[in-house]
Amino acid sequence: MNSDSSSIDWLSSSIKPLDTMTMYAAVEHQKQLTKPAGSLGKLENVAIRLAAMQGVLFPTADHVSIAIFAADHGIAEEGVSVFPQSVTAEMVKNFSNGGAAICVAARFLNAPMTVYNLGTVSPTDGLANVVNCAIAPQTASFLHHPAMTAEQLAQAINTGRHAVLTSSEKQREQGHKLDLFIAGEMGIANTTAATAIAAVLLNTAPEKLAGPGTGLDAKGVSHKAAIIAQALQTHEKALANSSIDPIAALQLLGGFEIAALTGAYLTCAQEGVPAVVDGFICTVAALVACRINSEVSDWLIFSHYSAEPAYALLLEGFATQAPLLNLELRLGEGSGAAITVPLIRLACSLHHEMSTFEEAAVSSSTVTINEVAH
Amino acid sequence: MNSDSSSIDWLSSSIKPLDTMTMYAAVEHQKQLTKPAGSLGKLENVAIRLAAMQGVLFPTADHVSIAIFAADHGIAEEGVSVFPQSVTAEMVKNFSNGGAAICVAARFLNAPMTVYNLGTVSPTDGLANVVNCAIAPQTASFLHHPAMTAEQLAQAINTGRHAVLTSSEKQREQGHKLDLFIAGEMGIANTTAATAIAAVLLNTAPEKLAGPGTGLDAKGVSHKAAIIAQALQTHEKALANSSIDPIAALQLLGGFEIAALTGAYLTCAQEGVPAVVDGFICTVAALVACRINSEVSDWLIFSHYSAEPAYALLLEGFATQAPLLNLELRLGEGSGAAITVPLIRLACSLHHEMSTFEEAAVSSSTVTINEVAH
Repeated sequence: MNSDSSSIDWLSSSIKPLDTMTMYAAVEHQKQLTKPAGSLGKLENVAIRLAAMQGVLFPTADHVSIAIFAADHGIAEEGVSVFPQSVTAEMVKNFSNGGAAICVAARFLNAPMTVYNLGTVSPTDGLANVVNCAIAPQTASFLHHPAMTAEQLAQAINTGRHAVLTSSEKQREQGHKLDLFIAGEMGIANTTAATAIAAVLLNTAPEKLAGPGTGLDAKGVSHKAAIIAQALQTHEKALANSSIDPIAALQLLGGFEIAALTGAYLTCAQEGVPAVVDGFICTVAALVACRINSEVSDWLIFSHYSAEPAYALLLEGFATQAPLLNLELRLGEGSGAAITVPLIRLACSLHHEMSTFEEAAVSSSTVTINEVAH
Repeated sequence: MNSDSSSIDWLSSSIKPLDTMTMYAAVEHQKQLTKPAGSLGKLENVAIRLAAMQGVLFPTADHVSIAIFAADHGIAEEGVSVFPQSVTAEMVKNFSNGGAAICVAARFLNAPMTVYNLGTVSPTDGLANVVNCAIAPQTASFLHHPAMTAEQLAQAINTGRHAVLTSSEKQREQGHKLDLFIAGEMGIANTTAATAIAAVLLNTAPEKLAGPGTGLDAKGVSHKAAIIAQALQTHEKALANSSIDPIAALQLLGGFEIAALTGAYLTCAQEGVPAVVDGFICTVAALVACRINSEVSDWLIFSHYSAEPAYALLLEGFATQAPLLNLELRLGEGSGAAITVPLIRLACSLHHEMSTFEEAAVSSSTVTINEVAH
């Protein structure tokens, strides 16, 4: 990928601070627009937050780049998914051919999309828009072994960083700033890996976190929780040391694509690129990033409530905003994040294009009669 | 408006039936797409419903028309809003000049928008895109009088019908079918009128339904509820007869714009035009329409959970789907409905453009191992 793929020293670099002066100016601007104060709800908030991130009073969401990280998981051999492992590589082909949900959304948004194959059991050579950066055919099964070596972990994290920097550079070559970055994932059994990481970071029993993923029934969910619980025993000693070390949890239990996501979110926050976070797996990776540096959360826009039951519990791990949408999505691929972009664009347009009370000669509220209740 | 503006006999005409064969085909098609079954949540559902409404396997949401109905309310003199009554006409001007939220959304959607002024205390002559169809400067205060006469009611309802038919015709002239119709409203004090209607139709005490509207504090909300309760006593006799007559409730308590909305939703359902319903006031008008003919609900797409507290109670009056969004909007103008359109468009694109498992050669779930839990 690059000459220094083994070093992750950059993880400790500082996060770009938000532009709070511009944020206050955006808050004031919102109050002047011809509408009852606060009546555009979450759309006001996302425009204000983007203003703070982009450092401009009128932020934009026109130029969006999408990166999908795909990888296979050794834990799949434990029967924790309703889909066979071959689906990971098959879906990489589907991404390349433009037939997956995220491809449709990317076209809808006119957003360039790149797929990074970090290691699938069936190789996927020579596909358009797929960058081959296989670390191994799959992770080791974390039921018995660390999912990856320290070197593999570094390689995966650095692939995430590379994806953000490349996306940014490509947009710049087109004369644009990267307004929003979207990361997605594909990997059969990756809700199992993500749930295991969440169990450690949130110090919560796996049975409280395990969900149906792509469609397990109740028995399947119990089995998944039991496998995770057993794995946490396997790694008990290593994890006892790692309660303050999210990177170790990522190495022991994670997937290559989850590590790449973590690297991507950290890079976004360091580089000042707003990241729109997809569902359960991306949010677990974002939690790892925030445990590495809590300021990462300033740069995250949570897109939607995943239908995965433990998502709400997961959100409690963050100090930031609630997700914008709740469409009962549980697809992954970054699709929920991409689906949110039209609303973010509209939030920017409303913030920029609405008239102020003064411009439109519209009377503001007569708060002398009844005080506005906010 | 037209030569027969006094007759509302058409209200009893039949509603266009949904195309259930196409709906089943759309359900089957969704199951073939390369994603876990049901994983696109509400977006699957909206595509399937639109297929049933439009009678085509691959529905579209490209051609959208927006009509805003504006009117003043006699009840405003009771101090039930934080905004002065002059704001209704001022906002009509703002609509005409393109500075309101709904204007920004209409441009974003490339949707033609027409404003119907059904009667404002300050006239608004000669404004672009504003149709002057004033019935009276405002309704009578329903605290003491019926809000409108039967003739005024008919005129208002027929303006709603006219708006749908004209929108449809204009799209046809451009070579398009009207894919979605959006109605919005503007009228200082109209949450008070809408709440009064809801109290009658849902047989619920006003204090359970009254909310802050554009920003009343707790004291203001109590005052609003008390005014409505007093008005319901004034009309007790007439309303006792009207418990099965939603049209009478509309005449006694409604606003011209609310009646127009009711006429618009009924016309949509008769003509087979899907209607995207905005927040609290539009939903009350839609409830009146559904009480006139319950099949109207087949043609309604609820766009968002209004931040008005009684909205959830209001929804219980319908048999149809839950709203798509919950962005804490409480602006009116049809803005919430318009904001939902990009997601409906994306739902149509996903339904149409995603590959099937067979096309993409992706393995479907191995339900023999773990049954899919749906």
